[in-house]
Amino acid sequence: MPQPTVHICLSPALYPIYHSNESIVVVVDILRATSAICTALHHGMKSVIPVSSIEQAKQYSGDEYIIAAERGGEIVDGFAYGNSPLSYINNPATVGRHLVLTTTNGTQAIEVASESHTLVIGAFSNISTLASWIAQRNQHVMILCAGWKNRINLEDTIFSGALLHLLLNRGYNMDIDSDAGITALSLYQQSANNISQFLKQSSHHQRLSRLQLDDDVAYCLTRDTAPVVPILKQEQIIISEK
Amino acid sequence: MPQPTVHICLSPALYPIYHSNESIVVVVDILRATSAICTALHHGMKSVIPVSSIEQAKQYSGDEYIIAAERGGEIVDGFAYGNSPLSYINNPATVGRHLVLTTTNGTQAIEVASESHTLVIGAFSNISTLASWIAQRNQHVMILCAGWKNRINLEDTIFSGALLHLLLNRGYNMDIDSDAGITALSLYQQSANNISQFLKQSSHHQRLSRLQLDDDVAYCLTRDTAPVVPILKQEQIIISEK
Repeated sequence: MPQPTVHICLSPALYPIYHSNESIVVVVDILRATSAICTALHHGMKSVIPVSSIEQAKQYSGDEYIIAAERGGEIVDGFAYGNSPLSYINNPATVGRHLVLTTTNGTQAIEVASESHTLVIGAFSNISTLASWIAQRNQHVMILCAGWKNRINLEDTIFSGALLHLLLNRGYNMDIDSDAGITALSLYQQSANNISQFLKQSSHHQRLSRLQLDDDVAYCLTRDTAPVVPILKQEQIIISEK
Repeated sequence: MPQPTVHICLSPALYPIYHSNESIVVVVDILRATSAICTALHHGMKSVIPVSSIEQAKQYSGDEYIIAAERGGEIVDGFAYGNSPLSYINNPATVGRHLVLTTTNGTQAIEVASESHTLVIGAFSNISTLASWIAQRNQHVMILCAGWKNRINLEDTIFSGALLHLLLNRGYNMDIDSDAGITALSLYQQSANNISQFLKQSSHHQRLSRLQLDDDVAYCLTRDTAPVVPILKQEQIIISEK
């Protein structure tokens, strides 16, 4: 196979346009679904079951499940958990259980790409581990940003640039037929010295700040706190083998 | 009315997501459809009639029409004109005639937004005139990038940042619900010292270079060569009143 290529898709609404059957898909929702998925699995949850609707989430019952639902940045009324990664760190109540998760954007993006042959979860929390894992496979990659209600967002775009940067250093090419890669890389390079500061202008950062979730944001922007590669297998996300 | 807002839509495929009934829509296809439209009107053509398909273009006949068709950067076989703006400068053969134009991306983007109450054409060729014209109207604005086959491209994104920059200086706000504006502004600021150099990495620039169209690219990146505001009126694009 010639050198593998990285494609970047900045919104789930563009997925059909950038779609390729050959690619490993990396779903990204930095604030906060994919950061939470990495964290929950790294901290001992058995699997994450992504569902699109609150109704689907409610169908799971029993001690083995933790049900988590977020809309618009807030935990949905009637649920104990949302998509804050901090809820799943060293929490005896969640260890060994399955996390049924529905969020505004992240789980929708997983749904969009669920038919791909390989779907993994990306976040700053697992970026180095993920880059190594991808590089070992030597296949084309699409980084699919969850965005915000199909709109482009800054944090997922910057993460795409950061992951692209790592993959370029490992011999990957950029998709030559699109400029989304250059855009993401350029934003990443411009923000690399202080992503947190740069992101303060982003719409979703401001949304979460209003909800007093600055600790969540700081955690989600920290690299390699959850060095696992979550992978979708039969509608459940589990830790991939090396 | 509160301060008007600028929304940026980086691909026609995202138009339904960013759409607002209230906004003036600025369609942008820097390389080269919207640059050509500004140029053709500034240099004496009566109107531009944008059509989506080559078949539609062929339906126009008679001395009053110049038919132009471009696909993939090249003039379509059987046509004398494509979307090179240079074809329409000081050309006695085109003055006083209507330009029937179909292109890979630009005319498709016009079609997508043709129901908006006001649709104008933007390019570096008319950027200052356009910014002044918009500012006088004090309405919300959506900048709609034509991209490349619904993919995001660099030159339209950078132009959006440049126009946004001018409008912010005139009291406009950025759309707070999306980060596309920050993305475009950031790319514009990063490239502002030498847009031409920065764009050499872009996919479409490379495509046009292969077709030996560097003079076209240089022209399309030059500001204020065609200080008119083309506006869509009853399926024809004409020069707007002040």
